[in-house]
Amino acid sequence: MRFAVRSSLDYEVKSPTVFILNVEAAALHRQRIIVESLNLNPNFPIERFADDEGGSRFIRVNAEPGPFHVDYHGIVEMDMIEKAPETIPEMPVGELPLDIMHYLYPSRFCQSDLLGRFARREFGELEPGHTRVTAICNWIHDHVDYVSGSSDSQTSAYDTMVLRAGVCRDFAHLGITFCRALNIPARFASGYAWQLDPPDFHAVFEAYLGGEWYLFDPTRQSALQGLVRIGVGRDASDAAFSTMYGEAEFKGMSVSIDAIDESAADKEPTTQAVAVG
Amino acid sequence: MRFAVRSSLDYEVKSPTVFILNVEAAALHRQRIIVESLNLNPNFPIERFADDEGGSRFIRVNAEPGPFHVDYHGIVEMDMIEKAPETIPEMPVGELPLDIMHYLYPSRFCQSDLLGRFARREFGELEPGHTRVTAICNWIHDHVDYVSGSSDSQTSAYDTMVLRAGVCRDFAHLGITFCRALNIPARFASGYAWQLDPPDFHAVFEAYLGGEWYLFDPTRQSALQGLVRIGVGRDASDAAFSTMYGEAEFKGMSVSIDAIDESAADKEPTTQAVAVG
Amino acid sequence: MRFAVRSSLDYEVKSPTVFILNVEAAALHRQRIIVESLNLNPNFPIERFADDEGGSRFIRVNAEPGPFHVDYHGIVEMDMIEKAPETIPEMPVGELPLDIMHYLYPSRFCQSDLLGRFARREFGELEPGHTRVTAICNWIHDHVDYVSGSSDSQTSAYDTMVLRAGVCRDFAHLGITFCRALNIPARFASGYAWQLDPPDFHAVFEAYLGGEWYLFDPTRQSALQGLVRIGVGRDASDAAFSTMYGEAEFKGMSVSIDAIDESAADKEPTTQAVAVG
Amino acid sequence: MRFAVRSSLDYEVKSPTVFILNVEAAALHRQRIIVESLNLNPNFPIERFADDEGGSRFIRVNAEPGPFHVDYHGIVEMDMIEKAPETIPEMPVGELPLDIMHYLYPSRFCQSDLLGRFARREFGELEPGHTRVTAICNWIHDHVDYVSGSSDSQTSAYDTMVLRAGVCRDFAHLGITFCRALNIPARFASGYAWQLDPPDFHAVFEAYLGGEWYLFDPTRQSALQGLVRIGVGRDASDAAFSTMYGEAEFKGMSVSIDAIDESAADKEPTTQAVAVG
Repeated sequence: MRFAVRSSLDYEVKSPTVFILNVEAAALHRQRIIVESLNLNPNFPIERFADDEGGSRFIRVNAEPGPFHVDYHGIVEMDMIEKAPETIPEMPVGELPLDIMHYLYPSRFCQSDLLGRFARREFGELEPGHTRVTAICNWIHDHVDYVSGSSDSQTSAYDTMVLRAGVCRDFAHLGITFCRALNIPARFASGYAWQLDPPDFHAVFEAYLGGEWYLFDPTRQSALQGLVRIGVGRDASDAAFSTMYGEAEFKGMSVSIDAIDESAADKEPTTQAVAVG
Repeated sequence: MRFAVRSSLDYEVKSPTVFILNVEAAALHRQRIIVESLNLNPNFPIERFADDEGGSRFIRVNAEPGPFHVDYHGIVEMDMIEKAPETIPEMPVGELPLDIMHYLYPSRFCQSDLLGRFARREFGELEPGHTRVTAICNWIHDHVDYVSGSSDSQTSAYDTMVLRAGVCRDFAHLGITFCRALNIPARFASGYAWQLDPPDFHAVFEAYLGGEWYLFDPTRQSALQGLVRIGVGRDASDAAFSTMYGEAEFKGMSVSIDAIDESAADKEPTTQAVAVG
Repeated sequence: MRFAVRSSLDYEVKSPTVFILNVEAAALHRQRIIVESLNLNPNFPIERFADDEGGSRFIRVNAEPGPFHVDYHGIVEMDMIEKAPETIPEMPVGELPLDIMHYLYPSRFCQSDLLGRFARREFGELEPGHTRVTAICNWIHDHVDYVSGSSDSQTSAYDTMVLRAGVCRDFAHLGITFCRALNIPARFASGYAWQLDPPDFHAVFEAYLGGEWYLFDPTRQSALQGLVRIGVGRDASDAAFSTMYGEAEFKGMSVSIDAIDESAADKEPTTQAVAVG
Repeated sequence: MRFAVRSSLDYEVKSPTVFILNVEAAALHRQRIIVESLNLNPNFPIERFADDEGGSRFIRVNAEPGPFHVDYHGIVEMDMIEKAPETIPEMPVGELPLDIMHYLYPSRFCQSDLLGRFARREFGELEPGHTRVTAICNWIHDHVDYVSGSSDSQTSAYDTMVLRAGVCRDFAHLGITFCRALNIPARFASGYAWQLDPPDFHAVFEAYLGGEWYLFDPTRQSALQGLVRIGVGRDASDAAFSTMYGEAEFKGMSVSIDAIDESAADKEPTTQAVAVG
């Protein structure tokens, strides 16, 4: 299943500014980039770096004052595996791959150490496995209002637990937090989200179950089989689409994703578990 | 129904210290003090003051260095009214007595402005009235663990909402917070609690319904008809049994309450609503 | 010294809504109302209540759907006392009037229990008295940025201590918090502020020193001798100019204050301490 | 300069428990392990994993119920470089090695996004470089009380900024937070600390300056040239000496470090900057 993704970002740079940008589709096992193109205007030199493990691709740009435009488009082939959710187990901590142990730890926006008692009370008695993480997502969907503008870049899962309102990023943070509190490795994923309306960058999360990372979207706004991931990390602090060091004004952006084969276009949101790595 | 209450507090005063003590039974409409005695050793002079509205009685003592012992005992007649809970309505904000409007406002430990969305989602659709406040207490009892030592004097309802553990004071704060968020006036009450085991100062809360203050104990540890109130206020910051300005060490205390007529001693915890004023 | 004050508030009421309004000049010892007029349009019936101690005057209005306009104007004579700051002492806790002891306690936006160590470290060694509270104001002025829009109605002194930005209300909360942490009674005051530019409701604080309440404005934006107080209380939760229970939209307001005798108009901001009660 | 380090940990395991232990000296460029020995009793099988970048070495143990004892000792040769502090510059964000960019991001205990305004106000005007980070350490030392028991494993830099008390871990978190807020990469380091009295695991931090990681100890309790690092990471959540998944009781531990060549034993705490990587 192939998708065409595109994003355009516009800035007005006021003083020499370093941009860390993370807008390109991640290079992942089940997410293959067919063609892509990144254009900067002005054409400042870029340096590339990647998070080996998650496949997130960053560029660093030293931008000079003036208008600065970033345009990315690519065609990405997704090869996600769909599985029956009830067949997917959790893994004992003692058997987790050692290189993902840190996805059990609390992070800036996911204070799993503080929400542990709640998570164990609410979800501790449920049957372990993919269905338990779905129960977590259902809880979030049912107990937190999706309200644009109700949170900001400093809002954490701790806050959302009390305030009960947020956007996709907050929903993902809360899901990650509950998973980690139950000893399920979980991480944040930003991406291009097929069928998201209106189009925008989206945030979901992944939980490590039965030897694979599985996607979850507690907002229920996107079709998981059409989630082209950009950044993967501990939480939003690892996956900002743009971080600026200097003075620059964000002027606007546009984001799009389209299915580019016919079969996909007809496809219903899956009811299966979606494994991505 | 009469109760004998007693409390003894021991301090070692290190430097001249002002004590604000609030251990005497409050003088309230339905709580009449038959006899009482307050003894300080050494017998420092005291100044008395009271919160007119709630009837809380405070003393201020300028204590000199050395051992300092406070002993209070009294016999209190309680004249609480028991009513069928389902007959007790909430009152529209526009009809509340004007002198209790401030019990709708957030306070140090009861951030009702922050927990409003949760309260409305969880309790907003319930039938208004005494039964709704009971539903709030049931929620607290079912969702928060009573764990000695899990909180401290700085723990607020905001924290308890996330951490999901606390003691009587935290349970009361959470109940107050939810009530205020639903526009039900609510206040904190400390007291001597009959049948509390082990004996200790206790904390409950009152909600203003149908023209009366009604008692609620989300911990379910005390018998409401045997709750001899000491301090009443916005939250625990208004009703500390002891506040010290100076250097003094708290060495220990004992607290007791006994029913002193036979009928009382047999009495079961009531299933009725208990109005106290 | 006389001032003409005026405020106009506009609302669009969507469903029957209870308003608690606090826009009239407070009736205080040294603040005498010469003439005044409150007009509501439509002319809904009002109920009045007051906080005896502080003199704040509230009205409760049951408003029906439709446009709702509130207009208040009055002439107020101020009789504040100016004193040499260095002559004004702090009072020992043991000698404070008993009816203001609660202004030592922490409140919703003034967590003096949490900021105590800082306050004692930073201000504990200073000479007690009016000059120490001025030092507190200077610290706030020098260490917190006045930035419109940087805080909201839920921001507390705890937050401002970390975030280091706020508006008049946050500055006042921080000043109150430091005072209480040093055992100086302190309270919040809202008012019409002469020479404030642009005109708006303003927030300052009062500290109890040498037997009087003294005004302080850590923002340095107003002339203290021209501060016509409206609401006085523990913090902003006691002194909101408008609280709504129901659905109503705030459409805008205007606020003004003018000196109405010639001598006043010439007057410089005082460098003296200003006692108000 | 060589050091003998040793740690012993005692647990009583109640149910099968997974331990993640991080007590071995890290394998780092300027910290060479001469000999070492890790003994578990009972001798459960272990799995090893390391954080490539920082050199932290973890073991995972599946422990069965009963007493569980961990003993580690090693001899480590330290080859730190001492440099004149005033010669060490900060690096522009645009020139930082790309693989350490994440040490600019906020983390669980280091909310550099929230403390940015304070950091820039307080330290923003200082000359960039090693001396500025020393100024940060001096500020922490002067403004935060070192008080055992004043914080716990959930205390973050945000809290410490208000509460102004903590232990080594809190001091390190605050230092890291200020550095990141100033765009200086910074990370947490746990270790065996020569001359720390009483002996214990210690926490310090590293800042990336002029192409090297430099050690800083805002507590001033250890000699930097004798800091044998164990764990390095974003904050304490990456460098716990022990994390348990299961039921086990911590019974006690002992930690020691001794200089094992004569010259070292005489050495004064350095006044130079200490580079470790």
